[in-house]
Amino acid sequence: MSSKNKRASSSKTPVAIIMGSDSDFRVMKGAADTLKRFGIGYKLEVVSAHRTPKYMQEFAVGARAKGYKIIIAGAGGAAHLPGMVASLTTLPVIGVPVALTHLEGLDSLLSIAQMPKGVPVATMAIDNSVNAGLLAARILSLEMPAVLKKLTAFENTQRKKVSKANARLKKLR
Amino acid sequence: MSSKNKRASSSKTPVAIIMGSDSDFRVMKGAADTLKRFGIGYKLEVVSAHRTPKYMQEFAVGARAKGYKIIIAGAGGAAHLPGMVASLTTLPVIGVPVALTHLEGLDSLLSIAQMPKGVPVATMAIDNSVNAGLLAARILSLEMPAVLKKLTAFENTQRKKVSKANARLKKLR
Amino acid sequence: MSSKNKRASSSKTPVAIIMGSDSDFRVMKGAADTLKRFGIGYKLEVVSAHRTPKYMQEFAVGARAKGYKIIIAGAGGAAHLPGMVASLTTLPVIGVPVALTHLEGLDSLLSIAQMPKGVPVATMAIDNSVNAGLLAARILSLEMPAVLKKLTAFENTQRKKVSKANARLKKLR
Amino acid sequence: MSSKNKRASSSKTPVAIIMGSDSDFRVMKGAADTLKRFGIGYKLEVVSAHRTPKYMQEFAVGARAKGYKIIIAGAGGAAHLPGMVASLTTLPVIGVPVALTHLEGLDSLLSIAQMPKGVPVATMAIDNSVNAGLLAARILSLEMPAVLKKLTAFENTQRKKVSKANARLKKLR
Amino acid sequence: MSSKNKRASSSKTPVAIIMGSDSDFRVMKGAADTLKRFGIGYKLEVVSAHRTPKYMQEFAVGARAKGYKIIIAGAGGAAHLPGMVASLTTLPVIGVPVALTHLEGLDSLLSIAQMPKGVPVATMAIDNSVNAGLLAARILSLEMPAVLKKLTAFENTQRKKVSKANARLKKLR
Amino acid sequence: MSSKNKRASSSKTPVAIIMGSDSDFRVMKGAADTLKRFGIGYKLEVVSAHRTPKYMQEFAVGARAKGYKIIIAGAGGAAHLPGMVASLTTLPVIGVPVALTHLEGLDSLLSIAQMPKGVPVATMAIDNSVNAGLLAARILSLEMPAVLKKLTAFENTQRKKVSKANARLKKLR
Amino acid sequence: MSSKNKRASSSKTPVAIIMGSDSDFRVMKGAADTLKRFGIGYKLEVVSAHRTPKYMQEFAVGARAKGYKIIIAGAGGAAHLPGMVASLTTLPVIGVPVALTHLEGLDSLLSIAQMPKGVPVATMAIDNSVNAGLLAARILSLEMPAVLKKLTAFENTQRKKVSKANARLKKLR
Amino acid sequence: MSSKNKRASSSKTPVAIIMGSDSDFRVMKGAADTLKRFGIGYKLEVVSAHRTPKYMQEFAVGARAKGYKIIIAGAGGAAHLPGMVASLTTLPVIGVPVALTHLEGLDSLLSIAQMPKGVPVATMAIDNSVNAGLLAARILSLEMPAVLKKLTAFENTQRKKVSKANARLKKLR
Repeated sequence: MSSKNKRASSSKTPVAIIMGSDSDFRVMKGAADTLKRFGIGYKLEVVSAHRTPKYMQEFAVGARAKGYKIIIAGAGGAAHLPGMVASLTTLPVIGVPVALTHLEGLDSLLSIAQMPKGVPVATMAIDNSVNAGLLAARILSLEMPAVLKKLTAFENTQRKKVSKANARLKKLR
Repeated sequence: MSSKNKRASSSKTPVAIIMGSDSDFRVMKGAADTLKRFGIGYKLEVVSAHRTPKYMQEFAVGARAKGYKIIIAGAGGAAHLPGMVASLTTLPVIGVPVALTHLEGLDSLLSIAQMPKGVPVATMAIDNSVNAGLLAARILSLEMPAVLKKLTAFENTQRKKVSKANARLKKLR
Repeated sequence: MSSKNKRASSSKTPVAIIMGSDSDFRVMKGAADTLKRFGIGYKLEVVSAHRTPKYMQEFAVGARAKGYKIIIAGAGGAAHLPGMVASLTTLPVIGVPVALTHLEGLDSLLSIAQMPKGVPVATMAIDNSVNAGLLAARILSLEMPAVLKKLTAFENTQRKKVSKANARLKKLR
Repeated sequence: MSSKNKRASSSKTPVAIIMGSDSDFRVMKGAADTLKRFGIGYKLEVVSAHRTPKYMQEFAVGARAKGYKIIIAGAGGAAHLPGMVASLTTLPVIGVPVALTHLEGLDSLLSIAQMPKGVPVATMAIDNSVNAGLLAARILSLEMPAVLKKLTAFENTQRKKVSKANARLKKLR
Repeated sequence: MSSKNKRASSSKTPVAIIMGSDSDFRVMKGAADTLKRFGIGYKLEVVSAHRTPKYMQEFAVGARAKGYKIIIAGAGGAAHLPGMVASLTTLPVIGVPVALTHLEGLDSLLSIAQMPKGVPVATMAIDNSVNAGLLAARILSLEMPAVLKKLTAFENTQRKKVSKANARLKKLR
Repeated sequence: MSSKNKRASSSKTPVAIIMGSDSDFRVMKGAADTLKRFGIGYKLEVVSAHRTPKYMQEFAVGARAKGYKIIIAGAGGAAHLPGMVASLTTLPVIGVPVALTHLEGLDSLLSIAQMPKGVPVATMAIDNSVNAGLLAARILSLEMPAVLKKLTAFENTQRKKVSKANARLKKLR
Repeated sequence: MSSKNKRASSSKTPVAIIMGSDSDFRVMKGAADTLKRFGIGYKLEVVSAHRTPKYMQEFAVGARAKGYKIIIAGAGGAAHLPGMVASLTTLPVIGVPVALTHLEGLDSLLSIAQMPKGVPVATMAIDNSVNAGLLAARILSLEMPAVLKKLTAFENTQRKKVSKANARLKKLR
Repeated sequence: MSSKNKRASSSKTPVAIIMGSDSDFRVMKGAADTLKRFGIGYKLEVVSAHRTPKYMQEFAVGARAKGYKIIIAGAGGAAHLPGMVASLTTLPVIGVPVALTHLEGLDSLLSIAQMPKGVPVATMAIDNSVNAGLLAARILSLEMPAVLKKLTAFENTQRKKVSKANARLKKLR
């Protein structure tokens, strides 16, 4: 294993969560909470494709060297942040379409998902940053047994939630 | 008038027409032909937001200094080029949504039009680069009497076309 | 420079902001505030394509002679105002789709953006009149150094806003 | 009955069929053929909202005086013709959304149907100018017994067509 | 003029306003108020395509004989009432798409507008029953000079409303 | 078991396949072929909601008495046939949205699926009449063991098709 | 009649109502209430395609043996439950698209309705679980005279509701 | 590093490319070709959510044990395969919406992207399986230096393609 990769897997904050505005934190908090739950370090930062395009380039170009393994990017409207960051790094980029006032997030979804051949963005459901955190955990689980263990436990928790929901349902009817 | 502005108005190629791929020229040709018709100089260039993001930044940041007054940018799918260029220059940017295989250009239209507050893109109809050329002519006409004269002549031509269409219609019915 | 153009650049109110109803001012205020910020004079007026079609024609035909350089037009639903005004003047026209009760502004966006070849409208995002003001500023900056200076300053402000957002974000997490 | 109305009902060409371009005749022919079938006089004319806005006003304002009782207007894309004509006359206006290359006529449909309170346009299905002719016939049938007779006969023809379709179906299966 | 038509034009209630449920009256009230304003008699009735399909047939088949000249039908969701009534009468039918909880009325609009060749429905904007009343007035104005006079007066009122809106706007800015 | 039900289950043609036009047979053939495959009798008939509304009522009201157990109805555009038939019978009605020239069948899908509370239509995918045949088979399998046996066999066939597809895939790569 | 089928028709709970989460009960209650009204037994259960995929398989595969005749499945977003259950059983499956926060249920509707050839799901309107209950009643009425009687009575109730609505309407106007 | 993970990183075929039908290979070939280019082993297999639901479960549950690190799943229409596989494994799953005859792939995109919290699918653009291959390469590059090297080389190739496109463009104009 090269020294470069060694550093990456020993990275304490393998995930960067970026968003165009701090008002997006309302949505992106789900990714942060999920990563915390899986014991995965992350850094939160406002990086705006449109207001700080030069810093965005600097951030994306330098992300791998800083030890990041995955970038989660949330954006709304004409949501260019995930795709632009993906074009400036070779790291996997996960995009979260954020619903703004109009069009229910359909514009964000299409702006993030419909990337041309050459630059992939792993697009999540509208406002679903929890799944961005979970996809990051799945990717990291390939080399981090501790995360894999927690993912398996998470699956059990999901099943138990359904049992509890059934118990509640019995009372409702 | 500052020397900077003097240079801009005397610029021989006040318009840059950029596009993500030479295959977009099929659509963007309309802008070039329109500018030619109005005697407005232009430069055509492939600048890809996703494949050459660093050059895109360089291009956009330097555009005003090069004497450009207007940038016309065509892009399809998750169409980030017009918005990203607009975030890197203070020049007016005109965006042309290019329809690709699926979704009929709706994804391009939303990716270009739904820009956040702070970074405007003058969005045209899907595949309608002729209007991008005409908007450039209208903008330049504010200070270029020759262009204004041609715009007025163009309006007459439009009217005459309707007369000719009426003549053809009489034969059809 | 012709006397006609001289008048235009010395115009104290280079921008007309028109809208179909005073209830649209809730949305169009953003354009007015933005122009004020850039020291650009403007006039606000209710001009309805459907309720005052004859006055609309009079207004649009006479706009250049009155010294206007740019027309910003906001409209909702079957939004005909920007396109019709654009067909009656050679000035650049900026259209702002206003979202009404249903369809989230998609009808307005398509009614404004999907103009036929020959009559361009610079379409903005739904309800985003701030960007209409900014595009007007970019266009006017081509010949008004004072506006250009303010646009550059505005870019810095945008960047600083992101810094502040990052500071707020640090407290949130 | 006032002399004004007398003229209208005795009008030999009670219907004007207008369209933005002679290329729309491909679609609008259905209206003409339908009116012919019902013995209703009509005039076909290219009237463009965007290329001949002044003539459009002249046409619409003078339509009632010329003896027209109904205006059928076909348009595609940002389809402003039906709504604008309706705002300039008190005659009933029937709008036919014409599908252009992209968006399958959805933009035309919304641009014609989503009129604000005050100016009604009787919107037809996309590309369905036959129904525009039929609606004109239904309106005229209110005072023209000959048209009513033909409408009733038309209903029988429709029923017979279904019988014939059934006969063909029997052979197909 | 046949006796049948004579009765129709002397009809005191030339318009039937029908709707699928009394809860639609919230929307359809606009048609009633508009007709009242123009001195046009109307009858309001709940006629449900889906809950009373047989009565709907009876109603539609007998509408002309009862002296109705125009039927205004409002419906939401899979809105079949206007089209079905139109298939059972030769009277002009005006359809008003009513927006229900989901899809913002787009389903109603398409269910009413996209009628096949042979059965026209004059489709209005979503929830815009005022325009249904106005279209009825325009149709009736062809033979009722009193209605025509009021339509012309209405146009003036519209213009005055714009003047007042301008006055309000001046105070707002 | 009542005599009424006995007749129904012994019915030789438990399924009626109706469509608005014989041109829809191109799509509806899938339902016929599927029923044939399952040994289920059916009758094909053109019944038009809009061209033969009275016969449609007669057909739907009498369908149960004729021994039909299920009605499959295909329709395009403003597709009223399935919903209207469902409102006139207590039999289960399966609706197949047929895609016409524009809007890709979205209008048909919404016109069939978005039925109000009280009148259910079992909506299939656009142009997917095969599934209408299969749903009929599933319903009839509840009381017809022979159909159940064939449904189970069909599942095996489906699985085998996947095996064959895998074999073909191996050759392709 | 085979013993297997005998058991099914004598089943006390012929309908299973499943949903992905107990929060969907808010929507699915309509199906339960409707079945109760028709005297049809049902069982409510939370079965999640995504959180309990293995149990979903077990449930679907065993449903017929347990005496179920019909499965009603409600799901939102990327709504896979109805289609997946349908692929694992030969029973008729009725799918109810549940509208979640964004896109108004359009995603659920398409995820349920657009099933491929081979696996039918009887799709209902968005959030309309009442119709799922009614379709189940219509299917069961084929062999259960008591249900048929209640369906006929239900039709009368629907008609009476319209009468009452008319009475209310008379007071409103 | 656990032995389990050791096996995974030494896996010769870290990627499974699955699709619902061999006819999808036309689209999914792009993923295979991309992986080949990056020297990443893969296996192609037809796994149908709807025709082989039990095998799909078996496949997904056993995928990690077989040494797969990433699953790429392509599906059209009501596209359940990617989401269902994701619910049965803890591996990262990449979904490719395949456009079928109608709706241009919008149904597939929504069926894949709009997953609920708990089960992430990395959604690609419609028909864009090349990007699925590239995302897999980016993920694998985190621990495979050889892949990282090729990704960097790929970026250069992309840039060179733009240069060549510019050369071609110069000839075109």
